[in-house]
Amino acid sequence: MNRISLNQITTKGWSLPEAVRGCAEAGVPAIGLWRDKVEEVGVGVAAKLVREAGLAVSSLCRGGFLTAEGPDAHRAALADNLRALEDAAELGTDTLVMVVGGVPEGSRDLAGARERVADRLAELAPYAGDLGVRLAIEPLHPMFCADRAVVSTLGQALDLAEPHPVGQVGVVVDSYHVWWDPDLAAQIARAGARIASYQVCDWTLPLPADVLLGRGHVGDGCIDFGALTEMVTAAGYTGWIETEIFNQEIWDAPGARTLATVVERHRAHVESA
Amino acid sequence: MNRISLNQITTKGWSLPEAVRGCAEAGVPAIGLWRDKVEEVGVGVAAKLVREAGLAVSSLCRGGFLTAEGPDAHRAALADNLRALEDAAELGTDTLVMVVGGVPEGSRDLAGARERVADRLAELAPYAGDLGVRLAIEPLHPMFCADRAVVSTLGQALDLAEPHPVGQVGVVVDSYHVWWDPDLAAQIARAGARIASYQVCDWTLPLPADVLLGRGHVGDGCIDFGALTEMVTAAGYTGWIETEIFNQEIWDAPGARTLATVVERHRAHVESA
Repeated sequence: MNRISLNQITTKGWSLPEAVRGCAEAGVPAIGLWRDKVEEVGVGVAAKLVREAGLAVSSLCRGGFLTAEGPDAHRAALADNLRALEDAAELGTDTLVMVVGGVPEGSRDLAGARERVADRLAELAPYAGDLGVRLAIEPLHPMFCADRAVVSTLGQALDLAEPHPVGQVGVVVDSYHVWWDPDLAAQIARAGARIASYQVCDWTLPLPADVLLGRGHVGDGCIDFGALTEMVTAAGYTGWIETEIFNQEIWDAPGARTLATVVERHRAHVESA
Repeated sequence: MNRISLNQITTKGWSLPEAVRGCAEAGVPAIGLWRDKVEEVGVGVAAKLVREAGLAVSSLCRGGFLTAEGPDAHRAALADNLRALEDAAELGTDTLVMVVGGVPEGSRDLAGARERVADRLAELAPYAGDLGVRLAIEPLHPMFCADRAVVSTLGQALDLAEPHPVGQVGVVVDSYHVWWDPDLAAQIARAGARIASYQVCDWTLPLPADVLLGRGHVGDGCIDFGALTEMVTAAGYTGWIETEIFNQEIWDAPGARTLATVVERHRAHVESA
């Protein structure tokens, strides 16, 4: 239980104060925060609540959305990410999860969108370094390439990270997004100290009408968490392991019950690896 | 129009005789056949119909399903694929599209499923060579990894193909399945003479409840067919270009109207490249 963290989207029905209390009561030592939940109470109050509860903040979700075109969108994206970096620092986490954005609507220029991600990461990285927060590039499953993230594999995320100091730009290994990758073992080994976050949830079938919400509790699907956790551990990662689940049915369940399942599955499938 | 082919799943409401007649009337010189449609009339009759209509058969869909475990499933898969190879030869096509199968239900052993694919391809390849038919491994989009195909990238398909003679095992480049791949340009160049089939349809949003049916007409989504067709051409591929669309709305439209749209989009987005 010393590395488990609740990504608070998993208990979406809980406010930030409720999630903090829930973690404390369940003996979960860390929480991954979401900006919308933080903003409901204000970043200062949120920081105070987690500190007083004795919780670590494993990450802040999320920055990114770097692919929009034009000077206005560019400026807005930079401003928003700078705010997110400042919030992360104030909340006491060194990890800002970056969902980089999809192909702009009406565009067919995937390569161009990917170039903008690289360019804007280069602008942001020094600021991240100044604040002691790392930009953690999250490759999303390729089914989200068009609308959410043009970074689709761990290898691609590492290609984007490598021009920058390891303390400024890292990567997220999220089981749901990467489990299918034939090159996964090699890329996790390559990632090494670039791994800024390890997130878990399972691939379950059938996919729901909104594929964003298809994720299951660890152990309910076809991902081998033993093998994956061994790879991440062998690469040298010793940080938090966040359970992050998007699933309407799980969101509709009471938060405490969801968190109890998260803890139980973490013990059975992840911690035991 | 000299390289266009209708993959008959695109006009799912048409029987094989109707699809053959539709292609002839529309001036489409080739057709990709599906085994279930062939079996409705029998392989001999199907071969005669396409020959008499003056159509080429660009491919037969499909063999595969090689990942099931146990001796019974193994024997059944081999027998079925041998039959498919014989049917392909009788129908006059040199290309059997292989959808290799997903992770067996209840299993978490993705690596094992992938090993079985390699082993069973090695068993089948010499028979394919004897019949003058090529096993065309189709990487499917990673969202189908669990339930349809554990081959998820063109690079992985090439790794599986390369131990075998180029005339026995090739790969399919299907725009829908590969467009997102950050390594696509390099892998298409690497594929060269291994490219056995080039299939097109577009990635459109939102994904429907059954993601199998989310494909759109060429030009309706975010895939750059100019760039993709140039890559495939530069790799040396001069064969048929099949339009293959799974989409309930398109299936509900009259076949002739669908085929007219296929032809128009092929001219505007693919042939012009």
